[in-house]
Amino acid sequence: MSNTIEDGSYVYIFLDAKRNWIRKVQAGNKFHSNKGIIDFDDLIGRPFGIRVQSHSGTMFQIHKPSQNDIQISMGRNTQIIYPKDAATIINETGICSGSRVVESGTGSGSLTWVLSRAVGTTGHVYTYEVREDMYNGAKKNLERYADMERITMHNKDILEGINEIEVDAVVLDLATPWLLVDEAHRVLKASHFLASYSPTIEQVMKTCKAMHESGKWGMVRTLEVLQREIMVREGKTRPTTWMVGHTGYMTFARSMSTDK
Amino acid sequence: MSNTIEDGSYVYIFLDAKRNWIRKVQAGNKFHSNKGIIDFDDLIGRPFGIRVQSHSGTMFQIHKPSQNDIQISMGRNTQIIYPKDAATIINETGICSGSRVVESGTGSGSLTWVLSRAVGTTGHVYTYEVREDMYNGAKKNLERYADMERITMHNKDILEGINEIEVDAVVLDLATPWLLVDEAHRVLKASHFLASYSPTIEQVMKTCKAMHESGKWGMVRTLEVLQREIMVREGKTRPTTWMVGHTGYMTFARSMSTDK
Amino acid sequence: MSNTIEDGSYVYIFLDAKRNWIRKVQAGNKFHSNKGIIDFDDLIGRPFGIRVQSHSGTMFQIHKPSQNDIQISMGRNTQIIYPKDAATIINETGICSGSRVVESGTGSGSLTWVLSRAVGTTGHVYTYEVREDMYNGAKKNLERYADMERITMHNKDILEGINEIEVDAVVLDLATPWLLVDEAHRVLKASHFLASYSPTIEQVMKTCKAMHESGKWGMVRTLEVLQREIMVREGKTRPTTWMVGHTGYMTFARSMSTDK
Amino acid sequence: MSNTIEDGSYVYIFLDAKRNWIRKVQAGNKFHSNKGIIDFDDLIGRPFGIRVQSHSGTMFQIHKPSQNDIQISMGRNTQIIYPKDAATIINETGICSGSRVVESGTGSGSLTWVLSRAVGTTGHVYTYEVREDMYNGAKKNLERYADMERITMHNKDILEGINEIEVDAVVLDLATPWLLVDEAHRVLKASHFLASYSPTIEQVMKTCKAMHESGKWGMVRTLEVLQREIMVREGKTRPTTWMVGHTGYMTFARSMSTDK
Repeated sequence: MSNTIEDGSYVYIFLDAKRNWIRKVQAGNKFHSNKGIIDFDDLIGRPFGIRVQSHSGTMFQIHKPSQNDIQISMGRNTQIIYPKDAATIINETGICSGSRVVESGTGSGSLTWVLSRAVGTTGHVYTYEVREDMYNGAKKNLERYADMERITMHNKDILEGINEIEVDAVVLDLATPWLLVDEAHRVLKASHFLASYSPTIEQVMKTCKAMHESGKWGMVRTLEVLQREIMVREGKTRPTTWMVGHTGYMTFARSMSTDK
Repeated sequence: MSNTIEDGSYVYIFLDAKRNWIRKVQAGNKFHSNKGIIDFDDLIGRPFGIRVQSHSGTMFQIHKPSQNDIQISMGRNTQIIYPKDAATIINETGICSGSRVVESGTGSGSLTWVLSRAVGTTGHVYTYEVREDMYNGAKKNLERYADMERITMHNKDILEGINEIEVDAVVLDLATPWLLVDEAHRVLKASHFLASYSPTIEQVMKTCKAMHESGKWGMVRTLEVLQREIMVREGKTRPTTWMVGHTGYMTFARSMSTDK
Repeated sequence: MSNTIEDGSYVYIFLDAKRNWIRKVQAGNKFHSNKGIIDFDDLIGRPFGIRVQSHSGTMFQIHKPSQNDIQISMGRNTQIIYPKDAATIINETGICSGSRVVESGTGSGSLTWVLSRAVGTTGHVYTYEVREDMYNGAKKNLERYADMERITMHNKDILEGINEIEVDAVVLDLATPWLLVDEAHRVLKASHFLASYSPTIEQVMKTCKAMHESGKWGMVRTLEVLQREIMVREGKTRPTTWMVGHTGYMTFARSMSTDK
Repeated sequence: MSNTIEDGSYVYIFLDAKRNWIRKVQAGNKFHSNKGIIDFDDLIGRPFGIRVQSHSGTMFQIHKPSQNDIQISMGRNTQIIYPKDAATIINETGICSGSRVVESGTGSGSLTWVLSRAVGTTGHVYTYEVREDMYNGAKKNLERYADMERITMHNKDILEGINEIEVDAVVLDLATPWLLVDEAHRVLKASHFLASYSPTIEQVMKTCKAMHESGKWGMVRTLEVLQREIMVREGKTRPTTWMVGHTGYMTFARSMSTDK
């Protein structure tokens, strides 16, 4: 049932890696691209995962939007944490079904979306964004796709303090993460993980230094992840010519107990 | 409460990246290493996330075993899917809280463990392993750490057929994945993802070819992920000298609907 | 003297990594760009390595064209072997002052240029190009910059045979390198190197297979080289966002003696 | 002639990537390894590039030592600039037959060796080493393999000043390269290249900062090079599991003219 395209469904219309769109199906309306028109009425009642031809003869795939499709669409026109990095953050911190996670900044909401999927109905994401325009944009994005019962959005500067305590993970994408390491430690369960994402090595250096000086963190570790796509075509298999060479560094640290 | 070390708790004893152990705390017993002895009785009743000194003066960190700690410990002495690749598989397929996932082979159970954490109490992992010794080893590993209510283990050759249908993802780590692409398609919901992990490029080529010839798959894409660690030390920050240069390629594909 | 810009000198006009040009200085003429005009008469008599302002106020650097500047300029609009790969080929084969080298295909002449610089006045490059248009283009490129006394150009299909013998290295950039491994062995001194550059892994596989089956090659080894640029800016140091993820694989092999 | 193994020749004895040796052939003597003995008398008079069996039945390849074989052998037990980086330095600076090059520190002499091969009989390498033990070790290494007419060795701290002027390139592998950027500029021809190799990012930052503040350098650029080996085996082709993840960063800069 849920695998049938209905009036009001979101669909992922795929031509190739650069030309793809998420659209809301509306009876009586059409999808327009420079590769031709698709009539939404021709989709309604059919299953996801079909191939359809536009009026001008180009073949499109029509999919149910995946977690990644939605994450990437949220980030259009903004700086997002790439899927490769989001995956690493979730894996290294052990965020999973049931986790209570603090995140800042919300940005476009794209990482909030992925986190909310990971924590499930029994977990929760508390996300902080200081800029009101970003907060509103993320709210709109998230309300479209996410289960808002799992998400609490704060339009607040996280540097002024974190409202929650005893959380399972803290995920930071801030300009000045080193200013938050003590506060993050205060609200994080002992032996749990902080993840800090930063584009520049100077941010990483300052954050690691603040952690070492505080004495409150163990197993501090900084990673970067490179993802390469291999084009597998018979007789001409090769990696793609261009790849993303850098997004950000991820620093992980484990909170030491302050109890004796 | 659960953040206190008790008689019977598992602890992650950390010295450095190469010297770390998961041990079961037993009252009256001791942990022995060539860096000295730790008396378990000195840990019981204290919180996780503490630093303790061995009898010979070396400082160890005592943590609650994380998802990654457990995954890596399961793989000792066997070939496991690395965390970086497990994270990519979960992210690209969108496996999350509630997902029903078929996996093969079980191997040491290390990926089964990670998947079971991702799917939560409302999802399920169905895992297939043909070799009886591997099946038994994985069972022992998983019973120690995982919630077995989320996991069904089959001691069966997946090439003989998959028992489940309408699953949300199929994850393969097989010597001959190309032999399973039709069967995987049969049991996978339309517009959902197959992930196939293979160490060699010939396996990837055959799998992609089988997918293209079947006409049942869309958006076939092959990735590799490189993870690099940066040692952040004041005045001498640099990536580590050695890194893992290759584990495996991951091919992802989306099932096309066979309905009209 | 040679470090002074003269009427007829070539200059490398540099604005940034994407906007740079090699031009011939001509008294009475001007250089035009969308960042303004530079009057060649303002350059003549001044040293290389100066900064000059265009009429519209943009600052340009004026350099003596380097080996790399020229190599890259030759390759504009064609597929060239990148400097990173050319460097690896020269290093791994040990091509140096005095070496006699066979190369095919000539292509734009860009690798011929680099090889001719490496072999010096006492070495020689013999280059083969089957396509007449490419041969003529390369000839024009090389006559502008290279010492033609070190270069012999053949407008001939190298698969029909190599004219030279007892050479120090053979460098191939061919669609079907596996067809030339026997002929390359015939003309190469024993214990010397063949380098074969190929964009696809299937080409590499066939070439390595042909080498192994012939029994004439030792130490067969395939490399790829990734080059990453770090943008060092105070407070915001980071690798560039995009990088070249793949150019080609390089296979190196050492000729075994057929003497007993 | 020179391609025949003689009494006194150096030979490169190759078993695999980890087990290989450069040895001087001496009539009446033998080569000993844990894979068996090779009698030098069985090699004399035969060509390079042969396969020989040890007394215990293992097959070895006997090659003429290549530039790379020698470079790597010089670096045993010390920190050398890897071939991949040496190749990049020579390529980016345009060092070639005829170049006059200043280098510091000499270290084991391994880069001096490669540079001396590149500059040929018409060029020259001036190399500085402050430590007397290193200087003596490098001298011994170089006298064994290099044409010493192309090399001038200084047992002197280069920070006290460079003796040569109007050189074509300056290549630095120093703990504090930022202290030498003015002196390097003084002795370098205008519009020519300085290359500075440093393991840590802090060294790179300080060097780039010193260059920018001096105003004497253009086109400052920092690179790192990753080399990956692909094991091409029929049916099981894949990159090697481990690779070198970091050696050093290379900063290149072009001297601006101080003339007006």
